[in-house]
Amino acid sequence: MRISELSRRSGVAVATIKFYLREGVLTPGRATAANQAEYDEDHIRRLRLIRALISVRGLSVSTTAHIMNSLPHDEVNIHRTLGLVLGVIDPAVEQSGAATPREQREVDRLIDTLGWKLHPRSTTVDTLASTLESLNELGVEIGADTLLPYAQLMEQIAELDLDQLGDVPSALALAERAIILTILLEPVLLVLRRMAQEHRSALRNTVGGSAPERGQRSAER
Amino acid sequence: MRISELSRRSGVAVATIKFYLREGVLTPGRATAANQAEYDEDHIRRLRLIRALISVRGLSVSTTAHIMNSLPHDEVNIHRTLGLVLGVIDPAVEQSGAATPREQREVDRLIDTLGWKLHPRSTTVDTLASTLESLNELGVEIGADTLLPYAQLMEQIAELDLDQLGDVPSALALAERAIILTILLEPVLLVLRRMAQEHRSALRNTVGGSAPERGQRSAER
Repeated sequence: MRISELSRRSGVAVATIKFYLREGVLTPGRATAANQAEYDEDHIRRLRLIRALISVRGLSVSTTAHIMNSLPHDEVNIHRTLGLVLGVIDPAVEQSGAATPREQREVDRLIDTLGWKLHPRSTTVDTLASTLESLNELGVEIGADTLLPYAQLMEQIAELDLDQLGDVPSALALAERAIILTILLEPVLLVLRRMAQEHRSALRNTVGGSAPERGQRSAER
Repeated sequence: MRISELSRRSGVAVATIKFYLREGVLTPGRATAANQAEYDEDHIRRLRLIRALISVRGLSVSTTAHIMNSLPHDEVNIHRTLGLVLGVIDPAVEQSGAATPREQREVDRLIDTLGWKLHPRSTTVDTLASTLESLNELGVEIGADTLLPYAQLMEQIAELDLDQLGDVPSALALAERAIILTILLEPVLLVLRRMAQEHRSALRNTVGGSAPERGQRSAER
């Protein structure tokens, strides 16, 4: 299809598509003339993912280009695909300098206790250590013992995540779904945590003359 | 103490402190002369929290001012303090328009199933619904049934969170700790999820001639 039809079917303006092509976010179409190219279903799928990463997740154009270019084209092994795709997208963490050996040791101890097997170049390990360093600077001492129950619960979360990836046909579709689930479920998990905090906190600290509860509002609708 | 000593003890430059005062992020000192004010330990504690929110969490100055001004001064009830403090800080979610009634219903159904009691004005509920809407637009249909096991695990996470708040003496200290734990543990949880995904994914898709594992690197140190 031409770029005009690609625009119509994807809902992305032609000017925006051209911008994505210029910035290397979207793979070029097949050139058919000096100033013309053909696009296919793959481009529609990619545009959808690009919009998700930029509009919904708020990633920068350059980060999005980095992710899109790391999408496998012929990879069928799920673990390798996930490693490739998830390895390039750090969670929304402000990097705050190198962690000290102390935090590194705590993270190593945590991973040993959990029995997790991680790739040596996995950036997640360093990210975790430097985040602990930031917390410790603020007087919140968090070590392996505190993290262990959190990590065990997140392992159960990861199992739920992988269950969602089950029956995806192609590598591109799998990569797309892995990105969407991993990145876009992050805010969902954090919101659920806030809601659960509010609920459990209310249970622990029952107050007299409490505010109307959500269940009551629902009933009023 | 004078502003110069406040700067020295907090490690924040005088010009930055003056900026925070102008922007209403830091509460003013007690005026002692036309152009002079006295600061106390409370200001040091607040400056530490401000730096945490701006530098570590990457919040804007105006959001930080909003949070700082909602800190209770004489509140002793833990639930009210948490509600006040946590209510103003949305998780790092891009708001993406209003959710449709369908997503609202799914969220209501989820909350009913969980038996969670939430404040009717809690923004978390709307945030969750509009995030689901974004996911559904991307072809990822996520409803109450999919979310239920995630929510149950996040409720266990929230219990761990509340355990961390146990023995905090004053309301300001409690609010500070609640903010630090809630906001700064978010990246920790997300990183742990990525690590767990990597580990569990490897377990599910064992590959021949696998890459060296982290345990082996640790042993080499």
